[in-house]
Amino acid sequence: MKVDLNCDMGESFGLYKMGSDEEMIKYISSANIACGYHAGDPQVMRKTVQMAKEYGVAIGAHPGFPDQMGFGRRYMTCTPDEIRDYILYQVGALREFASCFQLELQHCKPHGALYMMAMDDEKIARAILEALVSVSKEMIVFALQNSAVEWVGQQMGVQVVREVYADREHTKEGSIVLTRTGPNIQDYEAMAARVVRMVKEGVVLTPDGEETQVHAETICIHADTPGAVELTRHIHEAFRIAGIAIEPIRKS
Amino acid sequence: MKVDLNCDMGESFGLYKMGSDEEMIKYISSANIACGYHAGDPQVMRKTVQMAKEYGVAIGAHPGFPDQMGFGRRYMTCTPDEIRDYILYQVGALREFASCFQLELQHCKPHGALYMMAMDDEKIARAILEALVSVSKEMIVFALQNSAVEWVGQQMGVQVVREVYADREHTKEGSIVLTRTGPNIQDYEAMAARVVRMVKEGVVLTPDGEETQVHAETICIHADTPGAVELTRHIHEAFRIAGIAIEPIRKS
Amino acid sequence: MKVDLNCDMGESFGLYKMGSDEEMIKYISSANIACGYHAGDPQVMRKTVQMAKEYGVAIGAHPGFPDQMGFGRRYMTCTPDEIRDYILYQVGALREFASCFQLELQHCKPHGALYMMAMDDEKIARAILEALVSVSKEMIVFALQNSAVEWVGQQMGVQVVREVYADREHTKEGSIVLTRTGPNIQDYEAMAARVVRMVKEGVVLTPDGEETQVHAETICIHADTPGAVELTRHIHEAFRIAGIAIEPIRKS
Amino acid sequence: MKVDLNCDMGESFGLYKMGSDEEMIKYISSANIACGYHAGDPQVMRKTVQMAKEYGVAIGAHPGFPDQMGFGRRYMTCTPDEIRDYILYQVGALREFASCFQLELQHCKPHGALYMMAMDDEKIARAILEALVSVSKEMIVFALQNSAVEWVGQQMGVQVVREVYADREHTKEGSIVLTRTGPNIQDYEAMAARVVRMVKEGVVLTPDGEETQVHAETICIHADTPGAVELTRHIHEAFRIAGIAIEPIRKS
Repeated sequence: MKVDLNCDMGESFGLYKMGSDEEMIKYISSANIACGYHAGDPQVMRKTVQMAKEYGVAIGAHPGFPDQMGFGRRYMTCTPDEIRDYILYQVGALREFASCFQLELQHCKPHGALYMMAMDDEKIARAILEALVSVSKEMIVFALQNSAVEWVGQQMGVQVVREVYADREHTKEGSIVLTRTGPNIQDYEAMAARVVRMVKEGVVLTPDGEETQVHAETICIHADTPGAVELTRHIHEAFRIAGIAIEPIRKS
Repeated sequence: MKVDLNCDMGESFGLYKMGSDEEMIKYISSANIACGYHAGDPQVMRKTVQMAKEYGVAIGAHPGFPDQMGFGRRYMTCTPDEIRDYILYQVGALREFASCFQLELQHCKPHGALYMMAMDDEKIARAILEALVSVSKEMIVFALQNSAVEWVGQQMGVQVVREVYADREHTKEGSIVLTRTGPNIQDYEAMAARVVRMVKEGVVLTPDGEETQVHAETICIHADTPGAVELTRHIHEAFRIAGIAIEPIRKS
Repeated sequence: MKVDLNCDMGESFGLYKMGSDEEMIKYISSANIACGYHAGDPQVMRKTVQMAKEYGVAIGAHPGFPDQMGFGRRYMTCTPDEIRDYILYQVGALREFASCFQLELQHCKPHGALYMMAMDDEKIARAILEALVSVSKEMIVFALQNSAVEWVGQQMGVQVVREVYADREHTKEGSIVLTRTGPNIQDYEAMAARVVRMVKEGVVLTPDGEETQVHAETICIHADTPGAVELTRHIHEAFRIAGIAIEPIRKS
Repeated sequence: MKVDLNCDMGESFGLYKMGSDEEMIKYISSANIACGYHAGDPQVMRKTVQMAKEYGVAIGAHPGFPDQMGFGRRYMTCTPDEIRDYILYQVGALREFASCFQLELQHCKPHGALYMMAMDDEKIARAILEALVSVSKEMIVFALQNSAVEWVGQQMGVQVVREVYADREHTKEGSIVLTRTGPNIQDYEAMAARVVRMVKEGVVLTPDGEETQVHAETICIHADTPGAVELTRHIHEAFRIAGIAIEPIRKS
């Protein structure tokens, strides 16, 4: 049994540091790398790609809205054409750094408000997927189950990998609750056990205590969740005991 | 006898229009396309690449400093490492749009202050060329003759194409005078004749009236020079009479 | 009888030119000046304020979202607190240039998507008005009639000046239709006559041909409407014949 | 005997945190607040001004180059006119937040590369001081002794307050060494004693061990110097023993 562990990375900018990339990289199998729009800059992108290579972590693009002041978390009514081209721009820039280290991008995961919009809006999902298909037929996209990205991806023949969250609650539909609070994400041990259950049984408890089915193909941990490194260590330990291997979606 | 005609393009941004790209594209053989740092945006990049494809014009990256307010014309004391990564970022983004239209980048020509710094400073020239080699062994760079880019390019085995300017004066060393004024660039007919002489005889008059030798492998016309389209038409006519063909450096 | 004529100005940025400010300034009584977020830069702000002073045109702030690539026309889900502070930042910057020329700001008119959001959303209207009250008790705000800004402004004791559009259709409620097309805005003479009627009778035809009441305290003409200068000249002539004087809201 | 203690503040941006403002504010008498160009944003500006008011700390503008990626530390060949207007823009924006809390700006201290350029180049010094005079006749500027700002300020009648650095070496002329290393800035106790000597005797040792005279009217401590808070506590203790009071230049 195996699963992918993904984390947003490369969100530092100039002198500004964000996240504990140097620590988290040791524990994950896929890195979502910011591409200079909502976060990241060319030097940060280089360092992050290089670090991922050293640790054998698969890399993906983490493109966002051109809103650095809001860290890409604010919805912007961009047109699908604008979004398609913003994706191409950011993915292309990251690919160049990947290419410096003889790496290919494994996946793309839209960031923040763009991620949420893509899950809900078929036109935006399609725009993003059209960009990715143009980049490479092999490009994987990370998405919530039962989302517009999942449906449109199936229509278009793009490999959609469904993700669950180690540090967020899930709704009955398998979507996520954006806030960091909730009854099921209180302590590391319980959270790690919950992640194991998602992987092994495909079941998670909603904040209301109901069981719901989830497809846990990749597990997201936010690097800026307080105690992210420690939570990740707990997950590793729980996986070891449960016999779950951590592997990128596409082994290099 | 043949020569390349290059022009900066894709410098519009959002609602802001710059240059007469739709006209100039009909007359040139190589387009230097802005990459979103000093000018351009993802939608403009797409349109410019598409237009170049329609007209069979070779495309190149025109990366600049991250200084949109100053249009990349202000010197910035970036480190060579920063510059190398800014080049990779911008070239990578443009390549993605080229790839949408099954095109390869022919060349790179740094923009504005970055161009002038690269001509004078070996460390910066080397940083730019290292970025380009990493992108592709086939990448051509446009540069002034007797410049740091020319020397370093020869050392590194990068193909350097030397350019002259249709709308700027040249110094005795073959460098350019940045201002748009001077005795030799007064009227279109004289300017066209001067370009013909640069191509056929490899000679140009300096503002002091001295003859100096130039290697005119590609000729730059600035799209924002007043009357750029008309000047270009005069050059075309003069070339026709002189039997000079206009062709990109690398025929597709 | 008198009315104010307002126009967006100072939307150029760096080398990018926008609008025909030098022409329009001759015909209007109030200038809405961009403040560097969606458009404008410090040098453009200085020139625009100086030009307004020369022509005796009242000045106001025209703050927008921090979205230069989208020219502030895309909705962004900023919080009211963020919007309040974005307004303060932009208005403060403009006031400094006004102060260089011994001028006070007469008014503020939010730009683009921020304008439309403020008209619909009371929380955003309140955030903007709180910023303006903090700037000066005398600050006027331009707004559509029957908008959240009008209601909240009345509650807060801010002077709200209701505006109509010379180059856009109006709905039955007095709101505007964003597109530039419609049966009532076809030719300059008819448009000028329509503006006169709005001022004199307080009545305008909707696109459906119904009469609706409007409070035309200030009339907006977009400088980027094709033929804006000619339309404005027609309005001037129609006003001359109808005996309507053009005056800023607050005479200096 | 008294002296001013200044520190750069408000350099956070969006989600990015920088400096330990909440700690440093307790120990200083003057805060140099970033204004949104090289660092800071409207919400950070508000919070920083509010915090300074709570602690009775005098506030000043800390304007920089429009180079967020380089944190304003890279020289940019802006014209004096551009710089004058960039200063006005940033100072005006900050004044608006000061005005929200019924505060006046005490001073201005240019940031990073702009600071160093202003010290060396009379034209730039003059451009900055002209901007400040336009803001207020009372505005104080912080500068190195024997700098262009000092000379031009005297000519123009602007109050120049000369600063020394607690955490940088000084040259024989009283200028500073930009790197954080040197024989005289090794441990907190020695650094505190050195600051006391600068204030009481007007003397500091250069890295070569020579004594040189300094005018220590305000003392700068960088918040991003490792151990800045602890160093500042040592300085406080050394001042207490030496009978030196810490006071802003202009007591409110």
